[in-house]
Amino acid sequence: MTVLADTSFDFASLQAAFASGYSAADAVEEAYRRIALANDPGIFIHLRRKEDVLAEAHALPPFDPERFPLWGLPFAIKDNIDLAGVPTTAACPAFAYTAEADSFVVNLLRKAGAIPVGKTNLDQFATGLVGVRTPYPVPKNALDPAIVPGGSSSGSAVAVARGLVSFALGTDTAGSGRVPAALNNIVGLKPTLGALSATGVVPACRTLDTISIFALTVPDAWRVFSAAARYDDADGYSKRVVAPRMGAAESALRVGVPSAATRQFFGDTVQEQAFADTLARLSYLGATLVELDFKPFFDVAAMLYEGAWVAERMAAVETFMRERPDEIHPVTRQIIGAANRLSAADAFRGIYRLADLRRSAEGLMTGIDLLCVPTIPTFYTLADLEADPVTPNSRLGTYTNFVNLMDLCGIAVPTGLRADGRPSGVTLLARAGQDARAAAVAKGLHEDALPMLGATQLQVRPGDLGNPRPDPDECVIAVVG
Amino acid sequence: MTVLADTSFDFASLQAAFASGYSAADAVEEAYRRIALANDPGIFIHLRRKEDVLAEAHALPPFDPERFPLWGLPFAIKDNIDLAGVPTTAACPAFAYTAEADSFVVNLLRKAGAIPVGKTNLDQFATGLVGVRTPYPVPKNALDPAIVPGGSSSGSAVAVARGLVSFALGTDTAGSGRVPAALNNIVGLKPTLGALSATGVVPACRTLDTISIFALTVPDAWRVFSAAARYDDADGYSKRVVAPRMGAAESALRVGVPSAATRQFFGDTVQEQAFADTLARLSYLGATLVELDFKPFFDVAAMLYEGAWVAERMAAVETFMRERPDEIHPVTRQIIGAANRLSAADAFRGIYRLADLRRSAEGLMTGIDLLCVPTIPTFYTLADLEADPVTPNSRLGTYTNFVNLMDLCGIAVPTGLRADGRPSGVTLLARAGQDARAAAVAKGLHEDALPMLGATQLQVRPGDLGNPRPDPDECVIAVVG
Repeated sequence: MTVLADTSFDFASLQAAFASGYSAADAVEEAYRRIALANDPGIFIHLRRKEDVLAEAHALPPFDPERFPLWGLPFAIKDNIDLAGVPTTAACPAFAYTAEADSFVVNLLRKAGAIPVGKTNLDQFATGLVGVRTPYPVPKNALDPAIVPGGSSSGSAVAVARGLVSFALGTDTAGSGRVPAALNNIVGLKPTLGALSATGVVPACRTLDTISIFALTVPDAWRVFSAAARYDDADGYSKRVVAPRMGAAESALRVGVPSAATRQFFGDTVQEQAFADTLARLSYLGATLVELDFKPFFDVAAMLYEGAWVAERMAAVETFMRERPDEIHPVTRQIIGAANRLSAADAFRGIYRLADLRRSAEGLMTGIDLLCVPTIPTFYTLADLEADPVTPNSRLGTYTNFVNLMDLCGIAVPTGLRADGRPSGVTLLARAGQDARAAAVAKGLHEDALPMLGATQLQVRPGDLGNPRPDPDECVIAVVG
Repeated sequence: MTVLADTSFDFASLQAAFASGYSAADAVEEAYRRIALANDPGIFIHLRRKEDVLAEAHALPPFDPERFPLWGLPFAIKDNIDLAGVPTTAACPAFAYTAEADSFVVNLLRKAGAIPVGKTNLDQFATGLVGVRTPYPVPKNALDPAIVPGGSSSGSAVAVARGLVSFALGTDTAGSGRVPAALNNIVGLKPTLGALSATGVVPACRTLDTISIFALTVPDAWRVFSAAARYDDADGYSKRVVAPRMGAAESALRVGVPSAATRQFFGDTVQEQAFADTLARLSYLGATLVELDFKPFFDVAAMLYEGAWVAERMAAVETFMRERPDEIHPVTRQIIGAANRLSAADAFRGIYRLADLRRSAEGLMTGIDLLCVPTIPTFYTLADLEADPVTPNSRLGTYTNFVNLMDLCGIAVPTGLRADGRPSGVTLLARAGQDARAAAVAKGLHEDALPMLGATQLQVRPGDLGNPRPDPDECVIAVVG
């Protein structure tokens, strides 16, 4: 038992501990203790040697959260993002290379004082929303081991949900930064494309990829985003996106939601009810809900795997796939291999079709400030995926696949528990560059619902966000510590 | 000889005639007289029946240039842009279809009072910068029949240069709206991508195409642009671009120009000197010239035909090309056929490479308001093209190919005569949406140089722009009338 055994790893709690004299090394010790206790070999593909991490903690300048807003916070990195000196596998051991330098974003986070502890498991090449398409052990869902952990950023989401680290980096192309957040009851911030540099990230679909952020609270995720959103001249897709101080939610926002007729829950009436309940809260908090025919959004979503974009995944790994096909997960190989049938003319036709479909969907958003969608339509078990490795995966992307194709930003946020005790959650989506607008509303919903933070048995009080307290009434599953 | 035989077809002259009582039908009669006298069967692929055009002229409301800024102005349309009831051939007779409706832009121009007289020749499928890749007779260059007319908008440029119409529509993907302007001594406005709707236009490279405008003066081209720049919800690439009233050129503009070391004239020292002379005038007029290493722009340019974008041309005609390959011009077939070797993954790799190259070139433009480049590096004869149908074409695109790939807008403008009597000209390029900034500087250069208008033997006086006068000193080639 280390000195911080009872301290939540949300930023306010840990920084309060630092302010009272605890060291970054204390946090590292506690992180490693929790990782050991968690006893899930599926979470990390590569855990740094504790001595190295402690040395990094000791080398930090004195605690100064103004200058170093992430000072001493342990974090995890999805293993398709480079950490200097450590292999990047993308969950394909034969593909691995040892990163010579930190990725652009990891470098910024370290400069802000954060301390990386290791690299986390993922659906291979970030292709999947389930977390089971990996040659490594599958990370256990933090709340219910029968349920898939979600992917592709499986290990990062579980690490945060179990309180092993203060935050974690994922990536998000089709929903990999949001679906596992929903499945593990944490916050998943999916920034505007280009806000976070892709330098040092293994591409999935380079035109649609972004690093994403998992955290226990919205302000925590936002603080990471603020530290990481810097223009990178070396990344042709980097954009100058402003990450302002997040304020209170604006009043009188018009929030588009899927019309009752176009909501899809694949028979999960509990999820349907939970979403309706959340919308009622959103309305109570001051938003004007506008029901939208969601078919145009679903049409856009269909482009991601049915259209030309699978060729982006091929472009990322083509040489490797041709030379060492047997090293690739069979489901992943099948999905990416579909690109072999597509010509360059097909790719452009897909791009045109997307432009037209986007136009329709964007037309629907006229006068709308935000969208609110369920993050996932329902839950799937590991057994479901064994029976059919593709269909449940596709369905999990119902409310996420269209987002990056439309250049929207978004944030997935827990909103309490469903009637059956599973975590409920929604995603707030905004136009590119309006990350703060979505985050402010997400924060309001989160603090209104006051759900357990991940699977930590802790709950954050509204307003101060700085004093987590045990919440025995709402706690359903025991986890770390 | 009709009543308007001595009237220039620039807008101010013709509108002065209308104001003094001449009718739109008079202008139509004169246009048809000039077309007959021009005696070049290569200019128009389809000329409307004069009776129909006269009927359209008679049906116009009373002359009111405020309400109908293009009232009574005869114009020509490149034959890859739809005109209701008339075949659209794209210079491929077997590909032709009869347009059911006007293209979006033609419809707007007609609403503004302009009167279409016919459809003009082009490099087939708008693929080329020379004007000779057509199964129809090649239009004669308006100034020197030994020189190529330029393309792909060959007929439209020649029609304006010879004073047959007041303006004409072209299209521009790689330079088709600028190269023929330079070769025929007229103005070629290449708008910001998306400013002019592509609805009713046969695509070349849909992500890079735009309708372009040929006119005798910059204000004329601008007036057409102002009437045509409207958002089109049906075109997935349409943008809301503002076409403000064009003011005077801003003072103290920083204008990037190719450094002496990276200028390319392929041995044409006369062109080299003419460009240097124009830069001296530009500097005299108040611009600050900044020499730029142009290699990054040339690297972007190389993507257009060497990279994946040729697959866009394939996407536009793939079914036709597979079913009826012998109906396609052999050079065109060879160029577009190169797309058969490209996979969808290749297309995306090209897109990524472009993003990176663009970033480099855009970096060079930091602090730069405009670019000024030669429109063409040199002149080529019909004989040159017979000897080698590809190389001269490629070279003509030296200063045009990169422009749409970088989403710049531009305007080609004559700047007088070279030492050998050939027309000199430059293109002003600006960032997307800054069309007015480029046009204002182009207008200043044009009025400073006071060149002959096209091949019309007329010159416009500065300031008023409304009283063309014969300019026997500068007139080298007799044409219409």
